[in-house]
Amino acid sequence: MSDYRAPIDEMRFVLQEIAGLADIATLPGYEEATPDLVDAILEEAGKLAAEELAPLNQPGDIAGSQLENGVVRTPDGFAAAYRHYVDGGWNALPFDKDHGGQGLPWSLAVAVQEMWNAANMSFALCPLLNQGAVELLQAHGSPEQKERYLAKMISGQWSGTMNLTEPQAGSDVGAARTRAEPDGDRWRIRGQKIYITYGEHDMSENVIHMVLARTPDAPVGTKGLSLFLVPKLLPDAEGNPAERNDLRCVSLEHKLGIKASPTCVMSFGDSEGAIGFLIGEENRGMEYMFTMMNNARLSVGIQGVAIAERAYQQALSYARDRLQGREMGSRDPDSVPIIRHPDVRRMLMTMRAQTEAARALAYFTTASLDRAKADPDPEVRRHQSVDVLELLTPVVKAWCTDIGCEVASIGIQIHGGMGFIEETGAAQHYRDARITPIYEGTNGIQALDLIARKIMRHEGKPALRLLEEVRATQAKVGQAKGAAFSALRRGLDEAADAFEQATGWLMETFPERPQEAAAGATPYLRLTGTLAGGWLLARGALAAAEQIDDPDSDTAFLEAKIATARFYADSILPEAVAAAAAAIRGSASTLALEEDAL
Amino acid sequence: MSDYRAPIDEMRFVLQEIAGLADIATLPGYEEATPDLVDAILEEAGKLAAEELAPLNQPGDIAGSQLENGVVRTPDGFAAAYRHYVDGGWNALPFDKDHGGQGLPWSLAVAVQEMWNAANMSFALCPLLNQGAVELLQAHGSPEQKERYLAKMISGQWSGTMNLTEPQAGSDVGAARTRAEPDGDRWRIRGQKIYITYGEHDMSENVIHMVLARTPDAPVGTKGLSLFLVPKLLPDAEGNPAERNDLRCVSLEHKLGIKASPTCVMSFGDSEGAIGFLIGEENRGMEYMFTMMNNARLSVGIQGVAIAERAYQQALSYARDRLQGREMGSRDPDSVPIIRHPDVRRMLMTMRAQTEAARALAYFTTASLDRAKADPDPEVRRHQSVDVLELLTPVVKAWCTDIGCEVASIGIQIHGGMGFIEETGAAQHYRDARITPIYEGTNGIQALDLIARKIMRHEGKPALRLLEEVRATQAKVGQAKGAAFSALRRGLDEAADAFEQATGWLMETFPERPQEAAAGATPYLRLTGTLAGGWLLARGALAAAEQIDDPDSDTAFLEAKIATARFYADSILPEAVAAAAAAIRGSASTLALEEDAL
Repeated sequence: MSDYRAPIDEMRFVLQEIAGLADIATLPGYEEATPDLVDAILEEAGKLAAEELAPLNQPGDIAGSQLENGVVRTPDGFAAAYRHYVDGGWNALPFDKDHGGQGLPWSLAVAVQEMWNAANMSFALCPLLNQGAVELLQAHGSPEQKERYLAKMISGQWSGTMNLTEPQAGSDVGAARTRAEPDGDRWRIRGQKIYITYGEHDMSENVIHMVLARTPDAPVGTKGLSLFLVPKLLPDAEGNPAERNDLRCVSLEHKLGIKASPTCVMSFGDSEGAIGFLIGEENRGMEYMFTMMNNARLSVGIQGVAIAERAYQQALSYARDRLQGREMGSRDPDSVPIIRHPDVRRMLMTMRAQTEAARALAYFTTASLDRAKADPDPEVRRHQSVDVLELLTPVVKAWCTDIGCEVASIGIQIHGGMGFIEETGAAQHYRDARITPIYEGTNGIQALDLIARKIMRHEGKPALRLLEEVRATQAKVGQAKGAAFSALRRGLDEAADAFEQATGWLMETFPERPQEAAAGATPYLRLTGTLAGGWLLARGALAAAEQIDDPDSDTAFLEAKIATARFYADSILPEAVAAAAAAIRGSASTLALEEDAL
Repeated sequence: MSDYRAPIDEMRFVLQEIAGLADIATLPGYEEATPDLVDAILEEAGKLAAEELAPLNQPGDIAGSQLENGVVRTPDGFAAAYRHYVDGGWNALPFDKDHGGQGLPWSLAVAVQEMWNAANMSFALCPLLNQGAVELLQAHGSPEQKERYLAKMISGQWSGTMNLTEPQAGSDVGAARTRAEPDGDRWRIRGQKIYITYGEHDMSENVIHMVLARTPDAPVGTKGLSLFLVPKLLPDAEGNPAERNDLRCVSLEHKLGIKASPTCVMSFGDSEGAIGFLIGEENRGMEYMFTMMNNARLSVGIQGVAIAERAYQQALSYARDRLQGREMGSRDPDSVPIIRHPDVRRMLMTMRAQTEAARALAYFTTASLDRAKADPDPEVRRHQSVDVLELLTPVVKAWCTDIGCEVASIGIQIHGGMGFIEETGAAQHYRDARITPIYEGTNGIQALDLIARKIMRHEGKPALRLLEEVRATQAKVGQAKGAAFSALRRGLDEAADAFEQATGWLMETFPERPQEAAAGATPYLRLTGTLAGGWLLARGALAAAEQIDDPDSDTAFLEAKIATARFYADSILPEAVAAAAAAIRGSASTLALEEDAL
């Protein structure tokens, strides 16, 4: 297992040049996000990630979390690392200031989150789930609930979980059967939930479960789900964790990856019924869930970026060290590092370009969260919210996680036989990454969300706005000089045309033959991500070309940004055209074979 | 873990309509391969695979092979299953008749091999490695060596291994340091070999190692490697296994997948030196290795097909059973099997189309082995050998194994959260598949082999011959009616044009800028495979369309063949165009960034 080093220069560049963090720092409430503070935060987070979390990643995978008598023991070192993480104030970074949050922009928090996930994805899942619970409570909790729980969850002293899934209710959350019955001003919860990440563990002092359950006589489906706060330990009058609630972890899943993070089967109310507190109003649980879901989906997209970065760093380091074969066309009999071989270089460039494109899209999209929240102009807020954040969130979730898996697989390949040996560590990234296209809404669900809720519901306008932005960038690319910009010009033109054509197909097909449109949803999402990634790399390359003449600039870094964008344009953007064809032509043929004939 | 059922109808169709087994059965020596015998063999092999090997697959993964005091214990049931496999005469199927082989065509053997690998890839690796050892001995062993070893290895009573890799000598086999010193008419072997599949185990009575080693004063590199036969137990005068040789398994690798198959670190000659017997002449070991390598590469390609088939069957079965969500556009409130959802259908069709295309290419290529061997016309033999077998072997190895990994990954995705849980079994296919792009020459090595040895060395002719064949099929596709053939016409035309263009680029670029050509090798191989797979599916669809009017035909099966070819044309062939662009445009930009700047 190789070291992890946070790619701070790259993060700073993307934050400033692509996410526009300097602009965000001018918005009301975000004034503290000065370049100096941003640098300090990236540096310090990078240290914690590299020095404390990363070294626990492989041992954590080997040890896994263990369940004994209802208690979950995380791998050695995890609890101590979590304490340092909480003590450092890291958990509070993006949350509102009311209850101890630092109120910094999400676009900064996202870079920090990338570090935790790259260093140790299993560890980072605990704060990731807690974040969702905090957001739910911030948005929908009663003043008393906020008072009682928020500060401790924001600091990370207590951690939160999401309890949605049941064996018969996966993507179809509305099929959930967990029941809630009134008991005075509280409720009694009974039922079983599965896939509960950090549902029970020894890192935080208390676990606050957010549980979807059905009250008596609730309507069927998602419209009959209510949201309950169900603490593992019920706070006493002083707010300290006291009485044990009637809930327990009955088993841990045996998983392909993220083995250090406990994935719990949770049983609520085996005896007298678990005590729960209704959040907001009855039957609005699913609606509330959506308030945090977008953010959680962005965070999972970031996991894709993170694992890709980690896999790239490890493969690069191996490719520099591993001597094998002679240099092509050279007479020197000595073995050379495999990075000299063109095919290895292609693999590394693919990893690098995909990772940078995914990061650009994830940070850019997260920035729209800050703008949608803080911009004084309501039209800007609407635009940022609908045309950017909503449109691109499913793309970030699905496209970035697909990239995470693909890049981790190339990472194995670069290691050759060593990649298949677990001790090397490359295989762990491949295993860990594989959950990200599944949880927090499968990537297929994201694709349907993209075409139906994000595009069709707004008559296609967000997609056309994106296309306008791409064309505007193209005008600048057209004026820039050099091989990279020629490549971008051609690649982006083709991809933008393909996107325009596929969007036209979608608009025509969806109203008349929704099944057919749905059959093309996944390639359409892939097209959108590939185009958007290329567009943002082009913006980065333009910014780099502008800075490169500055004598104080880091020329090598800026040249690499430009060269990577060029590689992406030549080698990856053509896939956008293939994806458009698969969506347009392939949707009917997908359904041509009757299901019984499969 | 789901059941496995050998897809006998599909295999028979591909063997007859695409590999042309009926024609092969007219060639001298292959007359026994009558349709009746072929059917009987497929049926019987299917039973052994489904009933005995498949049920051991998941338990084998969990238990793994274990090393204790130098002895390797395979998982429970493996040794008994191997005995049944040997007793059934299965191992002897394709080998020459001289020493007990059945002399049946490789094109039939390949279907049977697919079954073993689909049922239990870890198990199937033992015969796969043995096959290479048998071929080496058949081609280069002395009469006395053949007499002593071949019959027992052909029956499978003894198993063979390949000992090439050393820690510093992976893809660069020529860096091997294992030494051989003369000792009378024998040799003493000393050194360590790694990644030795079934290097030590309890399934066969004896293990016959084929070891590359360096004799005193041998030239450096591959030209100084000699091949030795090094038995675990030295045969006595009667040929029975007797004295233990000085070699041992010192450890087993802890791997991502194929955990039931022991991957050994072998130590030769820790004490007095392992006794070895020179095969053929000194310093020609690597040359001999190539005689079996093509065949081994085809076999690994078949593993890709096999794991894809297994993953598809499992995902299909799950998609039929799993109820989740309502049918799109329907008012029925009941949950439906997820196979009804268009995005799931797209995933299943992708798995199916890729698997069928890979199988078509693998069987077609293997058939050329039979023709190159048995056709009475020397020009046909040359054509089959150079233009088909040699050209397509690296494509089968690399493209089919990439497909195996991709299809296994989609298999996980169809299972949603369940796919990430090891008990489901989908994750095992994903883990097992991941070795196939690595061993037997990484897929990057295959791509270089394709462009350099298979195309450039023959002035591009084999590629142009392939293109001619595709165009000839296109003429027939152009005359056929229906949506599938329209789709194939367009998809194949675009892909064939892309291949023509990319081949032109290769011919121009390789002589002048070999590094650049090498940087495009992998996308060029992907292009070749995607085109060739589509071409063979088109041939299958034409044959199906011809048969469909026959009242005795299985209409549903034939319609499915046509519908699958259509899906491939619409959804997958466009990737050929993207791959061509990546090769042509991307090769220069791959190398644009200096290695230090990565």
